[in-house]
Amino acid sequence: MKTIDGGVCAAKGFLAAGVHCGIRKNKTKKDLALIYSEKQATAAAVYTTNLVKGAPLLVTKKHLENGTARAIICNSGNANTCNANGIEVAEEICSLLAGTLKISADDVIVASTGVIGQPLDIAPIAAGIPPLVALLGKDSTSAAQGIMTTDTKPKEIAVEFTVGGVRCRLGGIAKGSGMIHPNMATMLVFLTTDCAISAKMLQKALSGDVAGTFNMVSVDGDTSTNDMVTILANGAAGNPEIVQEGADLDSFMQALNTVTVHLCRRIAGDGEGATKLLECKVIGAKDQETARTVAKSVICSSLTKAAMFGADANWGRVLCAIGYSGAAVDVTKIDVAFRSPKGRVEVCKNGAGVAFSEEEAKQILLEDEIEILVDLNAGDASSTAWGCDLTYDYVKINGDYRT
Amino acid sequence: MKTIDGGVCAAKGFLAAGVHCGIRKNKTKKDLALIYSEKQATAAAVYTTNLVKGAPLLVTKKHLENGTARAIICNSGNANTCNANGIEVAEEICSLLAGTLKISADDVIVASTGVIGQPLDIAPIAAGIPPLVALLGKDSTSAAQGIMTTDTKPKEIAVEFTVGGVRCRLGGIAKGSGMIHPNMATMLVFLTTDCAISAKMLQKALSGDVAGTFNMVSVDGDTSTNDMVTILANGAAGNPEIVQEGADLDSFMQALNTVTVHLCRRIAGDGEGATKLLECKVIGAKDQETARTVAKSVICSSLTKAAMFGADANWGRVLCAIGYSGAAVDVTKIDVAFRSPKGRVEVCKNGAGVAFSEEEAKQILLEDEIEILVDLNAGDASSTAWGCDLTYDYVKINGDYRT
Repeated sequence: MKTIDGGVCAAKGFLAAGVHCGIRKNKTKKDLALIYSEKQATAAAVYTTNLVKGAPLLVTKKHLENGTARAIICNSGNANTCNANGIEVAEEICSLLAGTLKISADDVIVASTGVIGQPLDIAPIAAGIPPLVALLGKDSTSAAQGIMTTDTKPKEIAVEFTVGGVRCRLGGIAKGSGMIHPNMATMLVFLTTDCAISAKMLQKALSGDVAGTFNMVSVDGDTSTNDMVTILANGAAGNPEIVQEGADLDSFMQALNTVTVHLCRRIAGDGEGATKLLECKVIGAKDQETARTVAKSVICSSLTKAAMFGADANWGRVLCAIGYSGAAVDVTKIDVAFRSPKGRVEVCKNGAGVAFSEEEAKQILLEDEIEILVDLNAGDASSTAWGCDLTYDYVKINGDYRT
Repeated sequence: MKTIDGGVCAAKGFLAAGVHCGIRKNKTKKDLALIYSEKQATAAAVYTTNLVKGAPLLVTKKHLENGTARAIICNSGNANTCNANGIEVAEEICSLLAGTLKISADDVIVASTGVIGQPLDIAPIAAGIPPLVALLGKDSTSAAQGIMTTDTKPKEIAVEFTVGGVRCRLGGIAKGSGMIHPNMATMLVFLTTDCAISAKMLQKALSGDVAGTFNMVSVDGDTSTNDMVTILANGAAGNPEIVQEGADLDSFMQALNTVTVHLCRRIAGDGEGATKLLECKVIGAKDQETARTVAKSVICSSLTKAAMFGADANWGRVLCAIGYSGAAVDVTKIDVAFRSPKGRVEVCKNGAGVAFSEEEAKQILLEDEIEILVDLNAGDASSTAWGCDLTYDYVKINGDYRT
């Protein structure tokens, strides 16, 4: 497997585009994105578990009942959530796009991200769809820009892998930034592949992947109402279709995991106001659930996040977060270390502090990517969670988001 | 019942003091506090549920097995947690104090708050105990200052109430500020009363109270390793001892609740970096657990907290926090309003936005105490949770706490 360029357009038969249609006031920011498959594709998705669900998710869920789709349209600047006419507007977006693309409205996946509770005006979207369709091309970045809110960078990646001796591609774009604490589903992530795979196997692969990837990311502990990860597989690579478990599904899942882990890291590292990516790697857990619970608790701790912003090796906060995580662990066996490209420093052994150089620790923690290494010394299970530091800018961005 | 002065010294037979002994570098900050009952008192306590427990809690738990105590000693500046010799040091503190006061070491309650994982030097405490004991008097404020860490204000209150026709008093001091998200027990809160009440009834009253008071407070979602609420009842008021449920226990619990709710509000409003007290009042819940889950989820939402800092009526974040709380609610029935001394503004009706004046909402949210009013319209249960806004200063305080 190797990383390649092209994002969601790396896979054969996929085109994309992004435009500014007028939902966002700032004309330099794209606010409408489209991904299109030249042929019918199998499709799978996972959604937020928030009881408050964005109207686009409800419409998409209905459209994906048959396991196929051809297009994904997504606007930023307005979440189309908690609005009396939300469903109606989401369906209208699908109809307008279907009319222009000459496909069935049932084959459109619709998503929205932005402010909750403000009616979404259909007019700029209706006006934006024709130029958006006209711009369709191998332009993944433009679509990645169209779904950004407070993200500072577009997020995209693609890989090439082999199934049944045939080279296939899988790529994706994502938006993250704030209200990021997915649960069973997640943020907005759009994936495409030209690998032939049945809808059932596709959903199995996606659902199996998110538990250890997007569900292990947290920026601020707030689970969005509009989280969605969706994947389209159009079979354009020409491989024998994956219809059951086995080596081919394993290859596919490995490619999928490479793409999703990359996007997790990008989403966490570009969390609202973040200056650092935090990776908590837990090993030595008695089972995977314990490892995941511990890793996520550390990543979610406001105190740990603030300490990392200040490059302060305050490992007591890591131990504290493990202690209240709800996982049954023996705290007298826990080892903690911090690691970055500048080195590694052990700070806690068997649940108690060990002497270390504060200056050396500071140098390690001043880097942009920090690993918090936890060994529970109680078994063989492991897990990784991704987060970011808590900064002045997070407060600034969210203190006055709407105005 | 009426509020009176005197804090933990309002009840007859209780003395207190606070000194700077040298644990904290800043000599203007007291770091050692003592509360002393002139006669033997019944005692009760609740503790953190964090699996990482401060050594002082373990020692205190042992000392309270017999349900009696005479003194509470607490240092700030060091939590005496995750240290290899923690238990030993906590026991030494009790022995030294018992020797000076000429009481049994088993009758000493010990607590510590501050940095985790740095050995606590016994020397300044040993040197500080004699002057601390010499200073014992009706000085509750001095003790309240001695337990402060990043708190900006000492927190104390007392009330007078009647049991069996006899006037009794109950008062308390507390420290809060950061790492505040108690679970089944809470922060450091020391309560005294001269009401005669059996150890069993005292524990029953305290345990029953915290579920709706301290456990409903959150500053940052981090459950401390050293949370403790403890109460001493020395019977000096001369009332017939409360030994069973009934009107007298009800009077006592009402007095207790008045004191604890006051301290909850003080702790939340003085959360690290806070500029505002947030109170989320949930009504119309189908049961109390639902009401509590919803109220606490709103108070804990980083996005809601940041919006309140910015005086931004971003009610979608409130709805989002209700949606991911885990409580089974019908989101299409939820009403939300904001209220402060400047007025009340309805922002959401039946789960969808209603038109409101942004200017009016801003004026309401610029106040120091904000109520977030949620009506689930599904029953008669209610609950209140207390929190604070998320500010630049929270990040500043916690970005470099140790240095």
